[in-house]
Amino acid sequence: MWRDLAPLGRDPRTGGYRRYAWTSADAECRAWFRAQAGARGLTHETDRNGNQWAWLGDPARGDAVVTGSHLDSVPDGGPFDGPLGVVSAFAALDELRRRGAEFSRPLAIVNFGDEEGARFGLACVGSRLTAGRLTREQAFALRDPDGVSLPAAMEAAGHDPEAIGADPDRLAGIGAFVELHVEQGRSLDLSGDPVGVASAIWPHGRWRFDFRGEANHAGTTRLADRRDPMLPYAETVLAARRSARLAGAVATFGKVAVEPNGVNAIPSLVRGWLDSRAADQSTLDTVVGAIEEAARDHAVRHGVDLAVVRESFTPVVDFEDTLRDELSHILTRDGSRRPIPVLGTGAGHDAGILSASVPTAMLFVRNPTGVSHSPAEHATEDDCLTGVAALADVLEGLACR
Amino acid sequence: MWRDLAPLGRDPRTGGYRRYAWTSADAECRAWFRAQAGARGLTHETDRNGNQWAWLGDPARGDAVVTGSHLDSVPDGGPFDGPLGVVSAFAALDELRRRGAEFSRPLAIVNFGDEEGARFGLACVGSRLTAGRLTREQAFALRDPDGVSLPAAMEAAGHDPEAIGADPDRLAGIGAFVELHVEQGRSLDLSGDPVGVASAIWPHGRWRFDFRGEANHAGTTRLADRRDPMLPYAETVLAARRSARLAGAVATFGKVAVEPNGVNAIPSLVRGWLDSRAADQSTLDTVVGAIEEAARDHAVRHGVDLAVVRESFTPVVDFEDTLRDELSHILTRDGSRRPIPVLGTGAGHDAGILSASVPTAMLFVRNPTGVSHSPAEHATEDDCLTGVAALADVLEGLACR
Repeated sequence: MWRDLAPLGRDPRTGGYRRYAWTSADAECRAWFRAQAGARGLTHETDRNGNQWAWLGDPARGDAVVTGSHLDSVPDGGPFDGPLGVVSAFAALDELRRRGAEFSRPLAIVNFGDEEGARFGLACVGSRLTAGRLTREQAFALRDPDGVSLPAAMEAAGHDPEAIGADPDRLAGIGAFVELHVEQGRSLDLSGDPVGVASAIWPHGRWRFDFRGEANHAGTTRLADRRDPMLPYAETVLAARRSARLAGAVATFGKVAVEPNGVNAIPSLVRGWLDSRAADQSTLDTVVGAIEEAARDHAVRHGVDLAVVRESFTPVVDFEDTLRDELSHILTRDGSRRPIPVLGTGAGHDAGILSASVPTAMLFVRNPTGVSHSPAEHATEDDCLTGVAALADVLEGLACR
Repeated sequence: MWRDLAPLGRDPRTGGYRRYAWTSADAECRAWFRAQAGARGLTHETDRNGNQWAWLGDPARGDAVVTGSHLDSVPDGGPFDGPLGVVSAFAALDELRRRGAEFSRPLAIVNFGDEEGARFGLACVGSRLTAGRLTREQAFALRDPDGVSLPAAMEAAGHDPEAIGADPDRLAGIGAFVELHVEQGRSLDLSGDPVGVASAIWPHGRWRFDFRGEANHAGTTRLADRRDPMLPYAETVLAARRSARLAGAVATFGKVAVEPNGVNAIPSLVRGWLDSRAADQSTLDTVVGAIEEAARDHAVRHGVDLAVVRESFTPVVDFEDTLRDELSHILTRDGSRRPIPVLGTGAGHDAGILSASVPTAMLFVRNPTGVSHSPAEHATEDDCLTGVAALADVLEGLACR
């Protein structure tokens, strides 16, 4: 199953995946999903928002147990972020059938479309649309860097964009959603556990810092006469690291745009994007406040104008206690096992989107380096198999009572 | 004359000039030059390297006095950098004719092609080719950002690229070259003089700093596990300013490229270009050495690899004493005038290229803000007229003895 999926959308130069929504690589992943469903006698459907579902049992009975994740990737992403949750779902079903499990609730495996947002700049488009957290109008306005709109891309890929939008009936038929995902950090590695359960998704946001100075000749303008926006930008990058470290949060400047971006020109504009996340809202407010204050101080000192715009924000997601405790109970009822670790995460997920509408939980599989969104992302085969067994236990506990 | 030239190649959005070599804006500027030559009864020719010459008298007589500058611009450049020297040349000739001057040496006004290098990335292509400081093979390898080669661009603009190359006979016929240019700094403004004479062009170079870290998820990677190249880059930007200030030099990071340049990704690569210049070689070595050392220290501290490549270097140009003193003498022989200031410059010029082959001097016109390579670049009308009068005096002193 891994072997068939591995080559799809992989860039031979970087070894990273480029599985962007509604591209040919995405179509190949979708065909793989359909084939896996068919091979297991599951009923395949693509919903109005382009999410794929593979059903065991009749969804009309309601109270379904759903598991899965996404198959798309960030630019040069790794093989596990997303696919591990889908592959593990099929593998867990195989395991349950080996155990001779009998299902008392309908079960579905899902592949949510466009989770990473690599093409249209917005994450979790498939689950957002379904949950009514993104309107049809907002989705129609999304464009990729080549100017292709989301509906045009859907249409080119053979999906009718006219029907997209909230899908409350579908959500009403789901009793529980469990997403398995490779951990994108080192908590499990540090605690020595192969699998953990999610407590919460940290609140996070993106802020754009526009430092506007004055373009000038880099060879002839006296330092005292300069209004060089690169200098307060550099100070702000360092302040962000400092503030995040003091607060136990994270803060990153990973994207920059410079105008005119000439070797012999003092920039007129340096635009830097801050991504910051923390375990709770008040810590995040403190960190971002401190970064903004440092940016303003340094901008004034260098005669540079500063505008800060919050481009996106996602409040904290606390996963439902009941389902989380049920998972912990299922996973520790074999007395030989250690208590299952419960951990927060700084990453967004479809599970975070659905959690407002459906009882939702997440399982994480250990990532020995913590590296993700990179071709070097890794999980050991042993840990992946432990993850499959844990997911099988959870599905059995939820759907076979 | 200004009025006809002003609209050519001007971007209506920014108000800046985009007169790039061998484009339609460049062709319009060239037509303007040809018309100015024709209106004054001068003999127009375009040399093998695309530089335009307007001759008064027979060039074959040799020992010509040549003045002029360039008409092309940086992206969103100002109206004075280049054109002021060409317009002042025609205006000075008009002034000399009003004075009834009689010429004992041939006189030429020149428009050097592609001085700024905005399109093909190399400055002073026209004068470099003529002086044999750029080979035909090197020139043929130049490409613009769209992949168009220099010879293809020349051909498309109606210039035969086959003949380009060193032009020693032409240089042998020149007895003196004087380039008038708007100052790209505030020395004259600070000394209160409308016009000055160049002593030297500072040595300068460009260095590329490649900071290579590890791409990772900006939300989930612990700070302690990061190898974020943005941090040593930011430290290096600040170190560059500090080192330059201590040494009385200039150092600028005006161009940056980041990979993958995603808001939620720790960069794998931050590439920054340093432009640095100083009054002498040893100061420049000290400044760049200190910046490199700081960059290495901070790279090591953040677990980031660093490679530094010197992409270009131009040693100091000391303009010939004899011609410079002659200019000072001519410009101060009217006893009422203050001594003419003699100043160095951090900017490269065609005059710097030619100075190795021909006795060369430069006149600077005061720039009240020091701003250049920007739409805000400015010189007052009074100062420009003083510049024309000074250039007329110089040409009269050199060519009418």
